[in-house]
Amino acid sequence: MPYVNIKITREGASAEQKAELIAGATELLRRVLGKNPQTTVVVIDEVETDNWGIGGETVTVRRARGQ
Amino acid sequence: MPYVNIKITREGASAEQKAELIAGATELLRRVLGKNPQTTVVVIDEVETDNWGIGGETVTVRRARGQ
Amino acid sequence: MPYVNIKITREGASAEQKAELIAGATELLRRVLGKNPQTTVVVIDEVETDNWGIGGETVTVRRARGQ
Amino acid sequence: MPYVNIKITREGASAEQKAELIAGATELLRRVLGKNPQTTVVVIDEVETDNWGIGGETVTVRRARGQ
Amino acid sequence: MPYVNIKITREGASAEQKAELIAGATELLRRVLGKNPQTTVVVIDEVETDNWGIGGETVTVRRARGQ
Amino acid sequence: MPYVNIKITREGASAEQKAELIAGATELLRRVLGKNPQTTVVVIDEVETDNWGIGGETVTVRRARGQ
Repeated sequence: MPYVNIKITREGASAEQKAELIAGATELLRRVLGKNPQTTVVVIDEVETDNWGIGGETVTVRRARGQ
Repeated sequence: MPYVNIKITREGASAEQKAELIAGATELLRRVLGKNPQTTVVVIDEVETDNWGIGGETVTVRRARGQ
Repeated sequence: MPYVNIKITREGASAEQKAELIAGATELLRRVLGKNPQTTVVVIDEVETDNWGIGGETVTVRRARGQ
Repeated sequence: MPYVNIKITREGASAEQKAELIAGATELLRRVLGKNPQTTVVVIDEVETDNWGIGGETVTVRRARGQ
Repeated sequence: MPYVNIKITREGASAEQKAELIAGATELLRRVLGKNPQTTVVVIDEVETDNWGIGGETVTVRRARGQ
Repeated sequence: MPYVNIKITREGASAEQKAELIAGATELLRRVLGKNPQTTVVVIDEVETDNWGIGGETVTVRRARGQ
């Protein structure tokens, strides 16, 4: 019954990669806490780089500097 | 003053249906806890089926199997 | 498969009231969008009044003023 | 190491304004709690006015009435 | 820079198990998307069983029935 | 009408500091986007250091090492 929310910047994650994140997070909860995969929910949010900040600046600005 | 966040898959909910969810959630908080509707906030997130997982797989894959 | 998060101030909601919120939110999603109640998840967060702000001040301060 | 999530309606906030929100929230955590800006994360969600409710109705409806 | 939020019911997860969830989620993001572990944040919320609903009822009620 | 959620580790923030965060976040939204302070909601979550991870380990472990 766990609920997992993964937030990443929107920078081209493929459907296959997102499916891997979902499978992996579900398996992690099963392995560590014995949670039933059938009721584990995973939601991925992809966030524009203009809308994500770290170190007080946007990821857009960091990417432009090559970070 | 409650805050309600409703996450659903993006599968064609209409503006009318979303307005009904907002009215219904606001009324629920008023009825059960006496919360003031004027300051109840409801935010609906519609999530791509590639980004929503249950049972370790994406909703896209489940829908393709007819689930 | 929806996920609903309800945030309220921690001011004595009973187990019965919280069960009513859970039943009501689940039924709302079933009625408006035909969502399967068996996979609808509702999580209630009760937040200390010191940790909830509206109008730029904490609910603790507002309650002390009788609001 | 704080995490800040700012949700606003999608009504034309510019990249500059979003960068200001990110810088301002990061500075706020530094000033009040001495948190390290380098590990402070800020995520802004812009929500369609059809998906945001207050007072039991959508922001779309409120804007149409001039509110 | 990803942010992962894991919500589970509060039913006795140990500090070691929570450390395993944090390590596992961080490694998952590194493996699938090449994300830098140093800036991956994981937050675990443990929710009272009275405050978690599925199938329209609380986990407290389900546990009492042996589910 | 904005909603701001601030997550910090539970390490002794005082009621005064939390009130400052609430006032500051509300003022930030007013200054940058002209948002009405009366309907701006701020919720602070304080998270146990066992439940917060960065760099693949818990803050508890990092604090024990002096970080």
